[in-house]
Amino acid sequence: MPSEATRLSIVLVEPNKDRAIQIIDSLQDAGSYDIHVIAENTGLARAVVAHNPDVVLVDLANPSRDVIEELSLASGPMDRPVAMFVDTSDDTMTKAAIEAGVSAYVVDGLRADRIKPIMDAAITRFNMFKRMRTELETTKKALEERKIIDRAKGVLMKARGIDEEAAYQLLRRTAMDQNKKVVDVASALVTAAGLLS
Amino acid sequence: MPSEATRLSIVLVEPNKDRAIQIIDSLQDAGSYDIHVIAENTGLARAVVAHNPDVVLVDLANPSRDVIEELSLASGPMDRPVAMFVDTSDDTMTKAAIEAGVSAYVVDGLRADRIKPIMDAAITRFNMFKRMRTELETTKKALEERKIIDRAKGVLMKARGIDEEAAYQLLRRTAMDQNKKVVDVASALVTAAGLLS
Repeated sequence: MPSEATRLSIVLVEPNKDRAIQIIDSLQDAGSYDIHVIAENTGLARAVVAHNPDVVLVDLANPSRDVIEELSLASGPMDRPVAMFVDTSDDTMTKAAIEAGVSAYVVDGLRADRIKPIMDAAITRFNMFKRMRTELETTKKALEERKIIDRAKGVLMKARGIDEEAAYQLLRRTAMDQNKKVVDVASALVTAAGLLS
Repeated sequence: MPSEATRLSIVLVEPNKDRAIQIIDSLQDAGSYDIHVIAENTGLARAVVAHNPDVVLVDLANPSRDVIEELSLASGPMDRPVAMFVDTSDDTMTKAAIEAGVSAYVVDGLRADRIKPIMDAAITRFNMFKRMRTELETTKKALEERKIIDRAKGVLMKARGIDEEAAYQLLRRTAMDQNKKVVDVASALVTAAGLLS
């Protein structure tokens, strides 16, 4: 069922039943979604993980910093877009929510017909942020690996009296023979050299 | 005047005079700000650059994609937090605005008393994004420099028949003697070697 596969799944955390119905109606008018409503905050983490939704929408009347942090952890704002609606907030709580990774933090702005554009914005922002996080992780890893391989080449050049190119080829050949990555062979070598010296 | 220095300066782009007055009143109730109102979009880029504000608030009734892109460029969303209020939007425009770097994109949600929390959220989000961008740039630069220094060491090792450590020391000494960075000496060497080979 290909249409099912592309349908966005939403977990809506909404203690107020009337509001939940309004939000669901408004979303169903705007598009086709799988919506699962959670009325209580208890066990939220488990529920979110179990449903593994594409988006989490959270409506909180009066959030405390603890609740924001708990909810942020539970809903995994680094794993999926989270839009959070609160009735009131202050600077500190706004900061806590955004730095926890919440993609949309809306103060006193929950209106059923505004849910869809806010959710779209949260998804776009999350994807943009995720691209950047991925690029940062990839670059950090490349730098880290380069440092390890450099150190390993240095060890080989000194121990065997060979040049850099030969040292690298030796690492590469060993990695191929052992069906490992060059960086793993290099890392093992650096550790061993540290132990032996 | 130290209090002046910490006062947030705001450029408010608001063609509607009544709305502008409401927003200014609401902001002045919430804190102490330097607010400069721009009523027209023409010459916006120059005006924003001239005022060099801490934050830009933009109120647009019906944005087109062109207008969003123009405004985004003009207000420099990578240089400072930009909060944009629009009366209507669709998925494409929301995406364009957020990917242009707009820190808060609020559809049909402009109410004078909501400006302050939205501005706070935009500032926090901008700072978070900026930290990440800076970290990414630093890491990319470190990786790039490492590659260049590696290549230069390789050139020296081959040309002079010296080992890696000696090659690095030679680069470092030359850089110190010429009051340059190691990476700049390395880069010049790599370029020269390319020309000469």
